[in-house]
Amino acid sequence: MQLGMIGLGRMGGNIVRRLMRNGHTAVVYDKDAKAVAGLAAEGAAGANMLEEFIGKLEKPRTAWIMLPAGRITETTIEAIAKLMEKGDVIIDGGNTFWQDDVRRGKALQARGIHYVDVGTSGGVWGIERGYCMMIGGDKQVVDRLDPIFKTLAPGIGDIPRTDGRQGRDPRVEQGYLHAGPVGAGHFVKMIHNGIEYGLMQAYAEGFDILKNANIEALPQDHRFDLDIADIAEVWRRGSVIPSWLLDLTASALAKNPTLGTYSGFVEDSGEGRWTVNAAIDEAVPAEVLTAALFARFRSRKEHTFAEKILSAMREGFGGHKEPHEAPQGASNPPKAGHS
Amino acid sequence: MQLGMIGLGRMGGNIVRRLMRNGHTAVVYDKDAKAVAGLAAEGAAGANMLEEFIGKLEKPRTAWIMLPAGRITETTIEAIAKLMEKGDVIIDGGNTFWQDDVRRGKALQARGIHYVDVGTSGGVWGIERGYCMMIGGDKQVVDRLDPIFKTLAPGIGDIPRTDGRQGRDPRVEQGYLHAGPVGAGHFVKMIHNGIEYGLMQAYAEGFDILKNANIEALPQDHRFDLDIADIAEVWRRGSVIPSWLLDLTASALAKNPTLGTYSGFVEDSGEGRWTVNAAIDEAVPAEVLTAALFARFRSRKEHTFAEKILSAMREGFGGHKEPHEAPQGASNPPKAGHS
Amino acid sequence: MQLGMIGLGRMGGNIVRRLMRNGHTAVVYDKDAKAVAGLAAEGAAGANMLEEFIGKLEKPRTAWIMLPAGRITETTIEAIAKLMEKGDVIIDGGNTFWQDDVRRGKALQARGIHYVDVGTSGGVWGIERGYCMMIGGDKQVVDRLDPIFKTLAPGIGDIPRTDGRQGRDPRVEQGYLHAGPVGAGHFVKMIHNGIEYGLMQAYAEGFDILKNANIEALPQDHRFDLDIADIAEVWRRGSVIPSWLLDLTASALAKNPTLGTYSGFVEDSGEGRWTVNAAIDEAVPAEVLTAALFARFRSRKEHTFAEKILSAMREGFGGHKEPHEAPQGASNPPKAGHS
Amino acid sequence: MQLGMIGLGRMGGNIVRRLMRNGHTAVVYDKDAKAVAGLAAEGAAGANMLEEFIGKLEKPRTAWIMLPAGRITETTIEAIAKLMEKGDVIIDGGNTFWQDDVRRGKALQARGIHYVDVGTSGGVWGIERGYCMMIGGDKQVVDRLDPIFKTLAPGIGDIPRTDGRQGRDPRVEQGYLHAGPVGAGHFVKMIHNGIEYGLMQAYAEGFDILKNANIEALPQDHRFDLDIADIAEVWRRGSVIPSWLLDLTASALAKNPTLGTYSGFVEDSGEGRWTVNAAIDEAVPAEVLTAALFARFRSRKEHTFAEKILSAMREGFGGHKEPHEAPQGASNPPKAGHS
Repeated sequence: MQLGMIGLGRMGGNIVRRLMRNGHTAVVYDKDAKAVAGLAAEGAAGANMLEEFIGKLEKPRTAWIMLPAGRITETTIEAIAKLMEKGDVIIDGGNTFWQDDVRRGKALQARGIHYVDVGTSGGVWGIERGYCMMIGGDKQVVDRLDPIFKTLAPGIGDIPRTDGRQGRDPRVEQGYLHAGPVGAGHFVKMIHNGIEYGLMQAYAEGFDILKNANIEALPQDHRFDLDIADIAEVWRRGSVIPSWLLDLTASALAKNPTLGTYSGFVEDSGEGRWTVNAAIDEAVPAEVLTAALFARFRSRKEHTFAEKILSAMREGFGGHKEPHEAPQGASNPPKAGHS
Repeated sequence: MQLGMIGLGRMGGNIVRRLMRNGHTAVVYDKDAKAVAGLAAEGAAGANMLEEFIGKLEKPRTAWIMLPAGRITETTIEAIAKLMEKGDVIIDGGNTFWQDDVRRGKALQARGIHYVDVGTSGGVWGIERGYCMMIGGDKQVVDRLDPIFKTLAPGIGDIPRTDGRQGRDPRVEQGYLHAGPVGAGHFVKMIHNGIEYGLMQAYAEGFDILKNANIEALPQDHRFDLDIADIAEVWRRGSVIPSWLLDLTASALAKNPTLGTYSGFVEDSGEGRWTVNAAIDEAVPAEVLTAALFARFRSRKEHTFAEKILSAMREGFGGHKEPHEAPQGASNPPKAGHS
Repeated sequence: MQLGMIGLGRMGGNIVRRLMRNGHTAVVYDKDAKAVAGLAAEGAAGANMLEEFIGKLEKPRTAWIMLPAGRITETTIEAIAKLMEKGDVIIDGGNTFWQDDVRRGKALQARGIHYVDVGTSGGVWGIERGYCMMIGGDKQVVDRLDPIFKTLAPGIGDIPRTDGRQGRDPRVEQGYLHAGPVGAGHFVKMIHNGIEYGLMQAYAEGFDILKNANIEALPQDHRFDLDIADIAEVWRRGSVIPSWLLDLTASALAKNPTLGTYSGFVEDSGEGRWTVNAAIDEAVPAEVLTAALFARFRSRKEHTFAEKILSAMREGFGGHKEPHEAPQGASNPPKAGHS
Repeated sequence: MQLGMIGLGRMGGNIVRRLMRNGHTAVVYDKDAKAVAGLAAEGAAGANMLEEFIGKLEKPRTAWIMLPAGRITETTIEAIAKLMEKGDVIIDGGNTFWQDDVRRGKALQARGIHYVDVGTSGGVWGIERGYCMMIGGDKQVVDRLDPIFKTLAPGIGDIPRTDGRQGRDPRVEQGYLHAGPVGAGHFVKMIHNGIEYGLMQAYAEGFDILKNANIEALPQDHRFDLDIADIAEVWRRGSVIPSWLLDLTASALAKNPTLGTYSGFVEDSGEGRWTVNAAIDEAVPAEVLTAALFARFRSRKEHTFAEKILSAMREGFGGHKEPHEAPQGASNPPKAGHS
């Protein structure tokens, strides 16, 4: 089947490659002509203008947009929609805010153009491992695109099957899900990323406590000098907490036990934020997912204004002066006999 | 190698079975004579009195205690130590607080008895899957017990090896770790459980948001009726968040999509609490692990006194009356135009 | 000065009364004719139709809308704006989402009508104590309305003056603030309420810990049977934490030490939610304000779906069965020797 | 009445002064001879050795220890107890961990010496404002010391009385409370400080959101340039959130609107930690008090190890590189159309 791809970055380029390796054809466009030339050399039909891109697509056309969420995706969809005809399909595979999907889907539907949102997980490993896809859109359109999704998905592989799934949608075990109408795909992907933040932070806090188990503020006989890399490895094997994220952590620690090459500034994509917004709109308490998001916000600041307010109050009621330099983490030794 | 086991519950019994299946011998004791008889029928040497138990052990003796953490473990260790001789070993494989290990280890060392703490993970699946063990104790004692640990551990199996581990302790890849001196084993196991709480809560909150995506308080075009069981399944395949805990969740949801048989009272073992205490002693912020613990506390109450205080304040300043019945979760519809 | 008031509930009615007691005049409208008649009997000019209301206002007209935030406020503003003329002023004194103010302000400005948003704090006590007002709008309009705000504000009273405010806007010490352009008033009021949630929850948790200091799970010599009402009272006097909210709590506890008449279902208005949304948009970590909001969400549910997910996982890996009835809060006694 | 005071720092010295100004006499000791001489010049009987201190006290002796919690308080109490006789009283007025009180109280009781723990709030303002005292100990001992407590307490002053307190302990309205047996005083003081952390953090986060309301990442028409100092001031007057802590904040901001002289390293005393420990022992969810504590921990670190773990994971699954410099707080602009 033929797919048009706009955006040939890490994700878009590899999706095209995985499709071509498995017998599909692709028309590709990127504002970077080199990226286009590169994939053309691998067998794709390259286009250097959107008009050319559209012209090379067979009708009904299918154009997958794989760009950063936000303005650039919005304007690209607007531009391409003007060149498209009734029955064509636009897939947004990026990390788009699902409410934007809903809005766009309605606008495009009025013009007879189909819109499909595909939350696409897999990162740099997807080309080999396959992509987990969470799809929103009309049934007949999603069904028509099935050959694409089937190829991109990891397939059942050697992951054990879940009991009790007899009679359920078999695509899910292949690694792709038609989650619901337009927007549902990115909604589910958003929650996936929200959970990802929570999982990451849970591991991170645990390792932090292990790492600090040897600080001087602790009583001598309550201190441990632990090998964090070995701990990450042993938990992969027979414990309750193995996961792909733990695999990656064990791998990073094996090579770099102190993680000294990292500074600790942690970006967040919009999806963690939108997850919390969704929780609030639904009145669902989501303490862990929110705390994980806030830990990232905090990681990017030297100090918050909030902390200065605290210092000002403390000076106000207690005459407490701030230390000139950062005190040790545990500058207040725990109470006698406690730890 | 011979091992004595005290406590033949779900964990202790299966540990003995896994050892015997692999050529080891066992002496077993439990206050429940039937449990002793059962394992004796499977080939263990049974004992109905501690003295008999000790008498059947070859010197230097090794007695593994697998009892609920707390008083019963404490008194059993005291009782058995009185019957033991220099060079004998007591293993505490339960979920003991690591500071109790440190204290006991010192007291027993003064009498020439070795103490080893083994944080043992694996639950009901351990007999087949093997146990992940985090071990604290003196090197020569832990080394002497290696045949036991090697058999109980899962072994390398088909779990992919981590790059960069060349030259590191090979036992870790088998699934057991000598973490450090007495107490270190349970310390690492405690953090394992702390992380477990955090991971569980991250998934739980995510699924809760998915479940509530269809409540009436949301705008009609922002509601989704999602299949939670399918979502759990698809995330197992190619996403960033697969894990054993997700496998279990997918399995539970496949059989019981509404989880209607569960009430939602969630116990906590001591280890989540001790993890937070450790974080506090080390001055490590551990928001996610703590929030996960508090969510369990809250799950076990109809209402907190804190909530009544809030109601009293609200009546005080605003004349707000409480609803007679629980309002809908999202009784305050989100702002127009927001979701 | 004359003011028109739409919405004669607890807040709107008392605002009119406080104005009339201090020499202003009022035109009042409410869909409830009895409420109109009541205030008319106290000296206001009543109107039973919006047209009549508008007709009785002197030009340039000033209409204060005091209705629940959301649809009813929106449609009322739309209706009244159609009846108004260039130079007239609409004040929204309710708990409106500030982004709605920004949108409305622009739309009305295009028609020559001024819009002023007034975050109004004071609750049922405002008629006597005065209202703290946070105002957004154009300078000349806010200035023109000054007699109204001055009368409604508490005035400097006997609250000690803050050093270092020489040369600053004197209105602030009277209890009203021109915070900025349209939307700024409700933005500041939103944060006020967000903080209010956090303060309330801080007290509430503290009293909860005091209340539970006598549970049986604690060691006998670490249990205290505390008089919560006396503690609330003593903290009002010379401690670091006196506040109006503590005064209200002490008052509630003096009359009703167990708070047995409250169930503990705690509503939230939109402002706590919007505060967290604002924190997220600004990438400001706001753990406490968010936790306070989530505690309210949780208070309104018997159990969350998240809790059932936890139970399902626990059964999956450990065979743990849920208790049939709610266990005691502290069903897991703290570790020996810890508390 | 005569009181002995050991420890003449900010708190101990001022307590002596307030007592002497009101007709009591004092014997004072400090390891710093200058501090002793200073108070001797103000009328106290100075002592440069503990023996001399004890010798100057009338029997039954009353010695108030006002030293930093921990080792120094512990050893001083041990030393002084050896010099004391049956019926003498030791008061610990510092920020001692209440479980230490319980232990000490028992040990001293066995020797006939009374122990009283006094949680003392008031900071640098106490000498004028009076001290709020939360007292633990035997009734007859606390009653015997009443003249001391009555003088140190603020008295009823002009703080409005709480309705419904008829028939209750009148000391409470004076600002001192006999909370219960030994330990109860510091337990209540501990919760006071725990709440204090929560209140401070609630205000701090609110001001942080106000401060960041003008960052460039926000849409132009959703940005506000707010006067934080004025906002703090206006909230003191008629709002729901006035408090002494807000007074102090308003005062700090009036003099120093940017708080530029503060770095934002925020110490914590043990009491916030012990409050969370108590909540955990009681299985009381205390999200806000804990978040407030963790915010302080985080404020004292450049980065946590947890944050490096997050960065390592992100590179592992997504190839994400960390920024070389700290990105702007809100480097990820909120979704189009959201704020």
